[in-house]
Amino acid sequence: MAKPRLRIIPLGGVGEIGKSMTVYEYRNDLIVIDAGAKFPEEDLRGVDLIIPDVGYIKQRLNKLRAILLTHGHEDHIGGISFILNEFKSIAPVPIYGSELAIAYARAKLEDYSDPKLADFRVVEPRKRYRLGQHFEVEFIPVTHSIPGSYAIALKTPLGWVVHTGDYKFDPTPPLGPRTDEERLKQLGREGVLVLLSDAVRVERPGHTPSEAVVSETLDRIIGAAEGRVVLTTFASNITRIDQAIRAAHRHGRKVAISGRSMEQSTRIAQELGYLHPPDGVLVPVEIAMTLPRKQAMLLTTGSQGEATAALARIASSDHPHIRLTPGDLVIFSATPIPGNEQTVSETIDQLFRMGIKVIYPDIEPTVHVSGHASREELKHMLRLLRPRFCVPVHGEYRHLALYRELALELGYLPERVVIPELGSVLSFSREDVRREGTVDCGPVLVDFVTPTHAVLRRRDEVASSGVIIAAFVIDRETGKLIAGPEVTAEGLNGKVSAETLAKVTEEFKRFLAKQKGGFSHGYLVSRTKSVLGRQLYRRAKFRPLILPLISEL
Amino acid sequence: MAKPRLRIIPLGGVGEIGKSMTVYEYRNDLIVIDAGAKFPEEDLRGVDLIIPDVGYIKQRLNKLRAILLTHGHEDHIGGISFILNEFKSIAPVPIYGSELAIAYARAKLEDYSDPKLADFRVVEPRKRYRLGQHFEVEFIPVTHSIPGSYAIALKTPLGWVVHTGDYKFDPTPPLGPRTDEERLKQLGREGVLVLLSDAVRVERPGHTPSEAVVSETLDRIIGAAEGRVVLTTFASNITRIDQAIRAAHRHGRKVAISGRSMEQSTRIAQELGYLHPPDGVLVPVEIAMTLPRKQAMLLTTGSQGEATAALARIASSDHPHIRLTPGDLVIFSATPIPGNEQTVSETIDQLFRMGIKVIYPDIEPTVHVSGHASREELKHMLRLLRPRFCVPVHGEYRHLALYRELALELGYLPERVVIPELGSVLSFSREDVRREGTVDCGPVLVDFVTPTHAVLRRRDEVASSGVIIAAFVIDRETGKLIAGPEVTAEGLNGKVSAETLAKVTEEFKRFLAKQKGGFSHGYLVSRTKSVLGRQLYRRAKFRPLILPLISEL
Repeated sequence: MAKPRLRIIPLGGVGEIGKSMTVYEYRNDLIVIDAGAKFPEEDLRGVDLIIPDVGYIKQRLNKLRAILLTHGHEDHIGGISFILNEFKSIAPVPIYGSELAIAYARAKLEDYSDPKLADFRVVEPRKRYRLGQHFEVEFIPVTHSIPGSYAIALKTPLGWVVHTGDYKFDPTPPLGPRTDEERLKQLGREGVLVLLSDAVRVERPGHTPSEAVVSETLDRIIGAAEGRVVLTTFASNITRIDQAIRAAHRHGRKVAISGRSMEQSTRIAQELGYLHPPDGVLVPVEIAMTLPRKQAMLLTTGSQGEATAALARIASSDHPHIRLTPGDLVIFSATPIPGNEQTVSETIDQLFRMGIKVIYPDIEPTVHVSGHASREELKHMLRLLRPRFCVPVHGEYRHLALYRELALELGYLPERVVIPELGSVLSFSREDVRREGTVDCGPVLVDFVTPTHAVLRRRDEVASSGVIIAAFVIDRETGKLIAGPEVTAEGLNGKVSAETLAKVTEEFKRFLAKQKGGFSHGYLVSRTKSVLGRQLYRRAKFRPLILPLISEL
Repeated sequence: MAKPRLRIIPLGGVGEIGKSMTVYEYRNDLIVIDAGAKFPEEDLRGVDLIIPDVGYIKQRLNKLRAILLTHGHEDHIGGISFILNEFKSIAPVPIYGSELAIAYARAKLEDYSDPKLADFRVVEPRKRYRLGQHFEVEFIPVTHSIPGSYAIALKTPLGWVVHTGDYKFDPTPPLGPRTDEERLKQLGREGVLVLLSDAVRVERPGHTPSEAVVSETLDRIIGAAEGRVVLTTFASNITRIDQAIRAAHRHGRKVAISGRSMEQSTRIAQELGYLHPPDGVLVPVEIAMTLPRKQAMLLTTGSQGEATAALARIASSDHPHIRLTPGDLVIFSATPIPGNEQTVSETIDQLFRMGIKVIYPDIEPTVHVSGHASREELKHMLRLLRPRFCVPVHGEYRHLALYRELALELGYLPERVVIPELGSVLSFSREDVRREGTVDCGPVLVDFVTPTHAVLRRRDEVASSGVIIAAFVIDRETGKLIAGPEVTAEGLNGKVSAETLAKVTEEFKRFLAKQKGGFSHGYLVSRTKSVLGRQLYRRAKFRPLILPLISEL
């Protein structure tokens, strides 16, 4: 009889950035690490979110022992509520992670699902948890841009398997402990079969700077600012938010938080004690706007130029509470995710046009540092763990390929470094690794029909489950309609009558006629979806996927 | 009577990168500097090129004395043939510039217009040319990424006006002379009224590295390469092409050039003696492919990931002559223009998937250097010229705003530094500057109906002159059509019958049914235009603007 092998299947995160998810399977036990989501690229506008296809797991639910979370960022936990909805038959599913990651996951279940579908278990470092018959797991603290980040060590019958999650070696993390190098080294001595590594920053030589560098920069910039200061970063970048609040406090500013996701993430981080702003520093936005400008700081969402986020609305003078005036300062403490470069640029330009001073990484590199390991850190991890096999699992294809080159430079044999594709089944014994085909794992598209109700569709089901295309060409400057809108239904099998479609189109035309130009592409896409969706639902009690196809001349 | 004033009107290049064009007007004399084109951004796919609206000049053709070219890059000369077509009534129009800029402009006229519309005049440095009654012009050598680059000094009745064009202070340019700092300083002493400055690299501190740095890097990389080397850069980056050919020759490689625009630009540069490759180094592509891999280098277009360029076809294994094999090396000696980040990334990923080694600026920063001045160089120019007024004229809005901050740091008064909008009329006396409104200068869209015939449309004419929308949703991976195509005509007033449209749509459906997936967005857009355009022309003898609106799920 053949010896049992360990199967590792990345269902997301390889050849793409986002929606991290990896399956580990040995005999009758199956473990999942992370359940991430990904924001769609420009040409997928109209789709709100993309999550991994969990069909492979659904067929083996009786083997699923746990979902383990490396940390609380969207690309690692953002799919959890939709995925647990698929796993209802075995609810509650044990979910292990740091206190913060679990609190964020719980909030997601409250929004789009039901926390009862999960059996949450907060882990502690240097403890071991048994998962089924064949696995044990240990969580190893690592530094990243959110506290409560862990690498995950799975003890399998074939040896340790280490999944780094997102990490860097930050010698002076402002929040939380340093990476537990001692324990990693020990694991290396005990014998690591496979390392699954973050690879996204492999292009950069040397070491990623410490988050502490950002503290100094923020302190200097905020200290020198004469007007209001607005700082934007990812809602879940709790470390950065903590740094910003401290710098504001040192310079006599009160801080208000604007943007739903950041309000939620900071509230949770505060409840759990990760954030402890000095008494009285946090104030409501309305109060902050009444303070002398030099005493106010605002923390907002929108660092990626998202059309509906607080910052985009500020830049369009469209925010209900926040109005900036010349001399105020906006700090982008984040870099654009690939694909968002244009929307970020547009937001920066809009702010400059208002007479606002803007500071962003291109002109002040240390206003942000990456949370990911650069080349020397990736090598350091390999030297600590000395795994028999390495698999890069977080990055575009070029990052995975460059990680492989890096491992080869360190002396690894080509057959010991595997570049996976999405859905690759990598099968390990103690001696070798083979590829055993690919499981079906095309993306699943999430369509937010209402703020609390989402519909999931596999890409290959979209055509048959019905879609509405809304195509039009509009003058970017004047807002005048140049051609269209053509609103057409496909695959709806009469669920929406021609008459309804015509009426909905008329309504939509009236909406477009009111546009005055100067809008962003994202604004048009999101408004097209909401206007059409509302009309359709009202008339047909039905809401198919709506894909706006818009050209702005 | 009011004293006559000097009017300066940027018709392109401000608040955007590309299609540089500036009008200088004093009493009955009007001068134009540059006649550039711009490649459309992602959401304008379907439009081939964008050029400035020259309506303001057309109404004053009797005053037009000359078009002056700063250098031979697309964003400064790419609109010349279309624009001279508009100026036919006063042909030939005197066009001044360096030998190389003029040769490139002439080639453009041969392709899309008629060289007889221009009266070309090759200039020499330190000479003065009279233009009408009130202007004289002098061309001052500057360093950039193409030889024959000039700053332009206009002697006006109010003093010197200096238009830098694209420049940097490169102390060791591999081709051509250094920036003539002595003459610039002299102009400063003689009295400069206005400086119109490149501002696009104002975000970067310090000095832009010399092109010589790239020579060293290319020499090292090409010297170490074991397989074929492919180098991609802008077709007009003659300096880079020269560096690459020299490095190849030093290491015993022959060089072939692939891609129509690069073949043309290098042929012209060779004829004029800017490029003088050692005898026998240049070979046809077919020959290069038969050489031992270590003896071959290919120079190709496609550094921006353009879907129809040589490199994209190589990366899709779709090039008629060039097939790469694992171990070959591709060098990107260029950075993506904003908006092209995604297509460049996709091309790099595709090459890595083929087992090709890829070197690009993110992993080897000195494989490319910018041709534009960084902050200290911008300051140096200000100190040399000591202009009374400064106007940044090449950059996104944020670059213009940051240039203003830089000038204020040097002690300029706020009222002396003007940020123009597109079409701003800036009116100067010796003492002051005022804004006198804005001239109509929305973009003009160029639609290549055939490779040698283009149709121009002002944005506000598109709706009335007719447009075909082709909207569809397709599965990126499998190529399966998910929804559409909806092909609809607007504003065509019966020039295309419903029957013709239905037939054309059927043809187009057949084309789409043959797609197998794995295509790039740009490929689909360009094929949609060509398939529909051919069918329409065949059936209706008519070819309106075709705008593909495509979503890839």
